Amino acid sequence: MAHKPHTPLLDRVTTPADIKRFSDAELEELAHELRAETIASVSQTGGHLGAGLGVVELTVALHAVFDAPRDKIVWDVSHQAYPHKILTGRRARMTTIRQKDGLSGFTKRSESPYDPFGAGHSSTSISAALGFAMARELGGVCDTGAGDAIAVIGDGAMSAGMAYEAMNNAGHLGKRLIVILNDNEMSIAPPTGAMSSYLSRLYAEAPFQDLKAAAKGAVSLLPPPFREGAKRAKEVLKTMTIGGTLFEELGFDYIGPIDGHDLHHLLPILRTVKARATGPILIHAVTTKGKGYAPAEGSPDKGHARAKFDVATGEQKKAPSNAPAYTKVFARELTRIASEDSRVCAVTAAMPDGTGLDLMAERYPDRVFDVGIAEQHGVTFSAGLAAGGMKPFCAMYSTFLQRGYDQIVHDVAIQRLPVRFAIDRAGLVGADGATHAGSYDISFMANLPGMVVMAAADEAELKHMVATAAAHDEGPIAFRYPRGEGTGVEMPEKGEVLEIGKGRMIREGSGAAILSFGTRLSEVMDACERLSARGIHPTVADARFAKPLDRDLILKLAAEHEALITIEEGAVGGFGSHVAQLLADEGVFDHGLKFRSMVLPDTFIDHASPADMYASAGLDAAKIEEKVLTTLGVDLLSRKA
Amino acid sequence: MAHKPHTPLLDRVTTPADIKRFSDAELEELAHELRAETIASVSQTGGHLGAGLGVVELTVALHAVFDAPRDKIVWDVSHQAYPHKILTGRRARMTTIRQKDGLSGFTKRSESPYDPFGAGHSSTSISAALGFAMARELGGVCDTGAGDAIAVIGDGAMSAGMAYEAMNNAGHLGKRLIVILNDNEMSIAPPTGAMSSYLSRLYAEAPFQDLKAAAKGAVSLLPPPFREGAKRAKEVLKTMTIGGTLFEELGFDYIGPIDGHDLHHLLPILRTVKARATGPILIHAVTTKGKGYAPAEGSPDKGHARAKFDVATGEQKKAPSNAPAYTKVFARELTRIASEDSRVCAVTAAMPDGTGLDLMAERYPDRVFDVGIAEQHGVTFSAGLAAGGMKPFCAMYSTFLQRGYDQIVHDVAIQRLPVRFAIDRAGLVGADGATHAGSYDISFMANLPGMVVMAAADEAELKHMVATAAAHDEGPIAFRYPRGEGTGVEMPEKGEVLEIGKGRMIREGSGAAILSFGTRLSEVMDACERLSARGIHPTVADARFAKPLDRDLILKLAAEHEALITIEEGAVGGFGSHVAQLLADEGVFDHGLKFRSMVLPDTFIDHASPADMYASAGLDAAKIEEKVLTTLGVDLLSRKA
Repeated sequence: MAHKPHTPLLDRVTTPADIKRFSDAELEELAHELRAETIASVSQTGGHLGAGLGVVELTVALHAVFDAPRDKIVWDVSHQAYPHKILTGRRARMTTIRQKDGLSGFTKRSESPYDPFGAGHSSTSISAALGFAMARELGGVCDTGAGDAIAVIGDGAMSAGMAYEAMNNAGHLGKRLIVILNDNEMSIAPPTGAMSSYLSRLYAEAPFQDLKAAAKGAVSLLPPPFREGAKRAKEVLKTMTIGGTLFEELGFDYIGPIDGHDLHHLLPILRTVKARATGPILIHAVTTKGKGYAPAEGSPDKGHARAKFDVATGEQKKAPSNAPAYTKVFARELTRIASEDSRVCAVTAAMPDGTGLDLMAERYPDRVFDVGIAEQHGVTFSAGLAAGGMKPFCAMYSTFLQRGYDQIVHDVAIQRLPVRFAIDRAGLVGADGATHAGSYDISFMANLPGMVVMAAADEAELKHMVATAAAHDEGPIAFRYPRGEGTGVEMPEKGEVLEIGKGRMIREGSGAAILSFGTRLSEVMDACERLSARGIHPTVADARFAKPLDRDLILKLAAEHEALITIEEGAVGGFGSHVAQLLADEGVFDHGLKFRSMVLPDTFIDHASPADMYASAGLDAAKIEEKVLTTLGVDLLSRKA
Repeated sequence: MAHKPHTPLLDRVTTPADIKRFSDAELEELAHELRAETIASVSQTGGHLGAGLGVVELTVALHAVFDAPRDKIVWDVSHQAYPHKILTGRRARMTTIRQKDGLSGFTKRSESPYDPFGAGHSSTSISAALGFAMARELGGVCDTGAGDAIAVIGDGAMSAGMAYEAMNNAGHLGKRLIVILNDNEMSIAPPTGAMSSYLSRLYAEAPFQDLKAAAKGAVSLLPPPFREGAKRAKEVLKTMTIGGTLFEELGFDYIGPIDGHDLHHLLPILRTVKARATGPILIHAVTTKGKGYAPAEGSPDKGHARAKFDVATGEQKKAPSNAPAYTKVFARELTRIASEDSRVCAVTAAMPDGTGLDLMAERYPDRVFDVGIAEQHGVTFSAGLAAGGMKPFCAMYSTFLQRGYDQIVHDVAIQRLPVRFAIDRAGLVGADGATHAGSYDISFMANLPGMVVMAAADEAELKHMVATAAAHDEGPIAFRYPRGEGTGVEMPEKGEVLEIGKGRMIREGSGAAILSFGTRLSEVMDACERLSARGIHPTVADARFAKPLDRDLILKLAAEHEALITIEEGAVGGFGSHVAQLLADEGVFDHGLKFRSMVLPDTFIDHASPADMYASAGLDAAKIEEKVLTTLGVDLLSRKA
């Protein structure tokens, strides 16, 4: 039985309106209870822990001072929104978080009116909040009313160009907009980049005490909250400002740095800002990720994402696995190749751990570049490295690679530069849900002239594809692989260089041929097991390449079978579409072919386990079996084994 | 006969090495000649004029001081590279610029070793140059050797997050990298954004004279050019620095602002930087777009892109057109709707003129947002506006919308927010070539759940689609239309709201059905004219929607014809692929259908006229006719009319 914290104040909170009746002292107590509740909750469910613990006081202060849902609190990335969810009517459902049909691990508009804008990817909050602010100025009408727009954004997210673009625009427009920079000096990875160093300097130069006095002085000017001219408001705010020129140069008023865990800081400053701000304002709050829970504060990732854990010890309850994770297989093979070829280098966008490049960085720190949350730059930087004679591997999650799409087209593909794209988390990813699904990379990569696009069917294939990419100097090449563990196949000593554009036969059969692209292959084989009980023995091939297609293999399969079924872990427009285009061009459809293309369905699939998600997507063994039977025109009931 | 300038010094320049023999006084004279040559050249060919004239002195100075192609000069956007092309062995071919088989209007790796990195889109140069710099540090080997990396980037390009991401990374890495900020206070549109105001303040606060003296002092320290420690180098450079804290805070040394048209400024400063720089350094040069040519300096766009013109008067020689441009049709209809609905607003990313939104801004300045070169922010800002109850039209060129792809997926589509995407310059665009082709938007938009995707067949259809988008509040919707003039069809008073997911029959025929998506429809009709001479009368339909598909129409066409041919102005993975998926799912291929999908070919198509480009793409009337004949199995020779 899980530890149940004592939460008398929290028990009285159904909506944020209930918080407004609390005294400042009670708010402090509420923060303690909220922290304990968050820890207890995540210990049962797993999920993001450290980020939420870092903003407990900030969450309490925001809801105490501002009026959600009329005021729009936009949480950047929003994995830190667990305390916010607890305070906004979702406490009872926290046990369902990140599970099928349960709460999302992120903010989600369809989940609550207190979530004005969903997130999952980083650095979108200032843009979204500015949209709310300008809609308010223009008299836009939405269900919850038009109040203040508040973005809460981490220091790591500030490395993204998108955040800068938004500040540049907000500074120019000059309307009231509140940005809270939650500076925990720790995004998922240790922070990199000049902005991060800059924030540290601000913090070092301005001790909290100075500001504490200023904040008290400012707030003493406050009640009754009467409106004054812009100039006077600026003066009041200036008393709270130390340093901060970079933001001021972009048109923001700057307040900080303040102690983000001290409600004596947060409450008066937020009250002052609420009463006085006339233009864009940035409040720089310094916090500690994992604050108040020793096992999180002490861990290298500050308790970023957790499995279920024991509250007392912090020990995680994760099922052991027999097969290596795809990410590790990629990283080890790349490191091996790097040891043989000094031109091999790698680029990650703030995901050294998630992409496995931290393993390579241990041995070759000079050849691994963490560019920050900066996929646009990361892709073109890779293109520059390639033009300069290096062999860059640009390793990104499929969903984040979407941020570098124009750079893939414009800087890599058009110039035929040999950038190697290692596309991790391809396909459906599980608990992170729709925002993190890697559904589109096959289609957006395979329609680019000169791009080679591979998908690994298992972890041994991935090893071959890393080697193949390293050897491919003629132009850009991409290989995709999923989240999670491999299938447990025997692993070769080292990867072999595959012939470009050639698939492989897995088993010869008759009637139907299944052409698989990616890790659905194991489900295909399971489906064949089931089918053999019915006396049906499909041919199975692994395409390996979506581009260039294995023309001979595909035409042979089409010629020798009544039905040809493609399957992939991606949306329509990808592998199956390229196969269909080939078959159409070759006139194969003219005289009839039972062609089917199994792709991700035309819906965003909510979080669940990957297996559940693929089942609901219609891409598991049962659905493959069914597709073969219906395509061949076998009556499912009468032939039921 | 065009005016031929007198260019005795320029006539002696075959490669940049020839410039190195010139004295500083001769370099000044060379700059005059180069300016005259650039004006004369563009007057004959048309093309980008103002940007090139703004960097004549900078181009001369860079080639005099640095050693291209060993040193990599990366021109951002690179429409300012005409003088660079003249100095780097391409003078004789300047008459072919932007024409079929001629020089590109941009830098291009395959065109010259002096173009280390191609461009066309903005703000990529710092990332690319940083790639070259780090490749050099790691011992990367490329054909031209590994020297200095120099990015030349405009102030407008600095509004893009990508440039910030690159600076943030460069400041962190700390290696020698030279960025020249070419501040002409004028990108294509008047500059917007806080960064732009900041640059103006730097300029206002630091008169050139102060720096001139400093530059002289610094250069006097120079020869012999011996290496000193990093600290001493910093001190020397500091003598040339006034202001510039924002860049310094990002880890750059800052020099400027300097007069970018004064070689007495440029040469000593570049020489000092070459001799002393140890880390990333930014040189802030103030220039005038169109400098030295009165008709360009005096025009609102500073002679950005020109048709052929008369050198004496600046008068452009452009053929008059009878049909309105698609861009104007969009803008006028949107402005009309905005007059009836105060919730309608619009977002452009530094293209108020190119997208026609300047027309709407004349009447409704508060409802048109120019966010700068910031597509990522622009898309999510639109999402925020929509969430706040507005009806935002996000108007971008197809090729630039690629920069906002993740935001379209993550912030708009997943949240089903009713952002209206007006996708201008869809399909092939002519003289700007492959970097500007709008080839991918159908596939990258139509595979998103809940997205509505339309393409206008002519300018009247575009009007309907603007009205349809304005009326569509249920989720996101996109409509695409090409560059250039319409077809001259009769125009309705105002747009009608189309039924979502319904196409229209154009003509009833037999044998073959052609299902067109977009403006290829007029070529389809021309093809039908030709075919009727052979007694072949295809059915023609306009799909209007790639998503949702008009299922009834498509299945009816398939059922009633021997052949079904789709055509679109986009790459594989788009409209035709969605039709193929439907036909496969419905079992239409099982018993035979001569299905063909005409799409852009799997190559990047070089600049030429749009008509020439579509001819080489195989998507003109002649190729459509041929496709119908070959698909129906008609022998082309024997049946030739």
